[in-house]
Amino acid sequence: MTKPGFSIVFFKDSGYRIILNIMGLMSKDIITTVDLPKEDVEEIMKQSEAMLLFLRDGRVPRLLKGKILATMFFEPSTRTRLSFTSAMLRLGGSVLGFSGTEGTSIKKGESLEDTVRMVDSYSDIIVMRHPDMGSSALAARIAKNPVISGGDGHNHHPTQGLMDLFTIMKEKGLRGVNVALCGDLKYGRTTHSLIYLLAMYGLGINLVSPASLRMPAEIVKEIKRSNGCEIREFRSMSEVVSDVDVLYVTRIQKERFLNISEYGKLEGSYRVDRKLLGKAKKGLIVMHPLPRVSEISTEVDGTPFAKYFDHAAYGVPVRMALLSLLLGKV
Amino acid sequence: MTKPGFSIVFFKDSGYRIILNIMGLMSKDIITTVDLPKEDVEEIMKQSEAMLLFLRDGRVPRLLKGKILATMFFEPSTRTRLSFTSAMLRLGGSVLGFSGTEGTSIKKGESLEDTVRMVDSYSDIIVMRHPDMGSSALAARIAKNPVISGGDGHNHHPTQGLMDLFTIMKEKGLRGVNVALCGDLKYGRTTHSLIYLLAMYGLGINLVSPASLRMPAEIVKEIKRSNGCEIREFRSMSEVVSDVDVLYVTRIQKERFLNISEYGKLEGSYRVDRKLLGKAKKGLIVMHPLPRVSEISTEVDGTPFAKYFDHAAYGVPVRMALLSLLLGKV
Amino acid sequence: MTKPGFSIVFFKDSGYRIILNIMGLMSKDIITTVDLPKEDVEEIMKQSEAMLLFLRDGRVPRLLKGKILATMFFEPSTRTRLSFTSAMLRLGGSVLGFSGTEGTSIKKGESLEDTVRMVDSYSDIIVMRHPDMGSSALAARIAKNPVISGGDGHNHHPTQGLMDLFTIMKEKGLRGVNVALCGDLKYGRTTHSLIYLLAMYGLGINLVSPASLRMPAEIVKEIKRSNGCEIREFRSMSEVVSDVDVLYVTRIQKERFLNISEYGKLEGSYRVDRKLLGKAKKGLIVMHPLPRVSEISTEVDGTPFAKYFDHAAYGVPVRMALLSLLLGKV
Repeated sequence: MTKPGFSIVFFKDSGYRIILNIMGLMSKDIITTVDLPKEDVEEIMKQSEAMLLFLRDGRVPRLLKGKILATMFFEPSTRTRLSFTSAMLRLGGSVLGFSGTEGTSIKKGESLEDTVRMVDSYSDIIVMRHPDMGSSALAARIAKNPVISGGDGHNHHPTQGLMDLFTIMKEKGLRGVNVALCGDLKYGRTTHSLIYLLAMYGLGINLVSPASLRMPAEIVKEIKRSNGCEIREFRSMSEVVSDVDVLYVTRIQKERFLNISEYGKLEGSYRVDRKLLGKAKKGLIVMHPLPRVSEISTEVDGTPFAKYFDHAAYGVPVRMALLSLLLGKV
Repeated sequence: MTKPGFSIVFFKDSGYRIILNIMGLMSKDIITTVDLPKEDVEEIMKQSEAMLLFLRDGRVPRLLKGKILATMFFEPSTRTRLSFTSAMLRLGGSVLGFSGTEGTSIKKGESLEDTVRMVDSYSDIIVMRHPDMGSSALAARIAKNPVISGGDGHNHHPTQGLMDLFTIMKEKGLRGVNVALCGDLKYGRTTHSLIYLLAMYGLGINLVSPASLRMPAEIVKEIKRSNGCEIREFRSMSEVVSDVDVLYVTRIQKERFLNISEYGKLEGSYRVDRKLLGKAKKGLIVMHPLPRVSEISTEVDGTPFAKYFDHAAYGVPVRMALLSLLLGKV
Repeated sequence: MTKPGFSIVFFKDSGYRIILNIMGLMSKDIITTVDLPKEDVEEIMKQSEAMLLFLRDGRVPRLLKGKILATMFFEPSTRTRLSFTSAMLRLGGSVLGFSGTEGTSIKKGESLEDTVRMVDSYSDIIVMRHPDMGSSALAARIAKNPVISGGDGHNHHPTQGLMDLFTIMKEKGLRGVNVALCGDLKYGRTTHSLIYLLAMYGLGINLVSPASLRMPAEIVKEIKRSNGCEIREFRSMSEVVSDVDVLYVTRIQKERFLNISEYGKLEGSYRVDRKLLGKAKKGLIVMHPLPRVSEISTEVDGTPFAKYFDHAAYGVPVRMALLSLLLGKV
């Protein structure tokens, strides 16, 4: 989908039922968070808030009745796929698609371009996950309908970034909040999408990772250049836990390490438990894009620090907001 | 979902359109048939009858419009999964979920608890099949929404038990009926769920199985203790076929036998064919939870004995009843 | 489903909103194109045209609200499965089913007959793909509801044939059009379904294939006998490209050849590129049932010859027409 060259965003603060905007996001694609204008992000946050209220009321308007979302998952996913599905169904729309390439024409050698053209003609909007970096952008160029990336390789996962931002906004607000991104920052695409949004709102950015899994240098450079913000780096969570308001934890995959003993040594520095949180700043929240394996001890689950399940639940209103905005039904 | 501590059940016998009840089942979980109160079973039978009439009329009220059923199938299933899906769609609701663990975050090492929490936040009611005994009860403790077990290992399959009971009720009534449960009673979870319901209604219970595949002793003991009913045991179907009104046949899996020749010897005693049915009591019906392999000869299909396909079709109204009752929309 | 013995077809040419017909196709099965009466084909074309207009308007009547389509795909498919799904959803209906036999009761040894009986009781209409020739006809005999074949082995793929015909009608009309079917005509089931429709409308039929992959002799003989039409055969596309109006290209699978060097020699004669099209008759269109691998060079994609993507998109209105006609909702 080509993006319209012109967009006027218009806000009303008088309650969640009156959201007027002159279709700033309509028909756009959501591929990364890098080039997303702040007006669009604000519109998404606003609309997400409205959707959250509808969900809590149990009365969601069937804005997308008759519309079809195509879910093209070339790679495993439950969370992203099911939360988009839930979002579409809540709004009265329908869903079709595939999950995994078994039993698809991709197995017969069809090109991604041809597969996208086909699915585009069967639906009104596409969400796609694919292992190759840049595949979402390619799909967006081909498709007539809006394309939302559900993750392309190690590159980006923009809707996760948006629901991360929404979670921070709901739980801590967006003023003077200090955030630590922790774990595998090299391959962790959710952190690549979130960091641009943190910079956009001027939040404090702290990067905590093993030396071999640092945030890609070009991302750090670009953010420093365009936002002029300071980014601090650390090697263990215990160094930041008493200073930050948000501990955003990601999984470190054993497979990333050639040397298993090196992994063993690191593991402890990237694990959240009651001991670590004993030193936490007052009001600190722990977030995680999930699934978690052992990065967060289950002993944290019942504590006020634990916001990772609320975080996951926010995925539905944020994706409802995106679907309705991109389809121009608000 | 925690169950409400108090429930008043109220019945009217004046036709299928007027079913009033003060939400006896609303928000409950259906995990086994062991602790299901008789009022609840009666409510389900009543509501199933109503749903059957709606289906025959071709005019089903869209009671569950806007509601989402999540189907979490960690193990293969077509019948249970598709009949729940059909039931939900017939009532105007929608369905999301997964079938098999390929392509899910379980493969990435996510715990069952975390997966349930996620799916719970995307839906209004869950049906789950999982290979581990007790997994359904665990899911029910975690989820905020009602959980229905679609089978947990060799333990229970309560909705199959309920549709078995409904089939007997529709085809033979529930007074003075003599039932034989035949085949693999050790691992056959459908018989574990059905036997409690037979006892609840005081139906005659006959158990027909190889010695190595007998109904677990603790189940037999518990039923004798709590219901004071008599349970008779046999080793071949020919011993009971002239006495019983219902022959409930299950599959004996070859894999259960270490010694293949032992299996060969037994097979004949657990196969329903015209020869066996030549000695049948007048009006006897043959039921099977399906899929069948060779336990029932296809030569029986066209005869008046064969009720296994009607039996399967009753799965839809019974599941419609459950979904609508648990969601409080009747 | 048994077909009604009597049908009156009634046409009005006064626009797409007034389509009256006395249910010629209602409750029929669509298994092959061989015995499809011309009245039925005309009814389908008419209704497809109407559906196309609804889709372009963006206002499709929800004719199939409350109806359930079952998709039984025993073999991989994305295009056929998703376009049927899209068609059903566009008309306000719902879809359930399976894709691949992993996780189905077929894996437990259930017969096709039993699986069909089950799915039939959960839905209102079935579309099935199965690797065995004749399986669709078997399913149609068993099911109470209409069955549409989505391809049975190398036999037939009738709905593809109908959307091929619709594409030719829309792009070239149905008078005096000369068509070349090219590639693997032995195993290519789409060409087996299309050739009967070409003969029905008296279109010119040219067969272009390697000697080892010729159209089955019995099909050619039957068509010559019943339609008295002429069928010409060729060994390379360059022999026909300047004479025909439609180049219908199918994939030649490497696996069909024992001798890989033989395949290599042939490949060039069955590949559409700009060079071949330099000799094309004015107005020639290239069609392909897709997925394509290398039979059509991507350099053709942007040219006026390329109609294969429009062709694929026509699948939705044609399948909408079929679903609504067979369910008697027009």
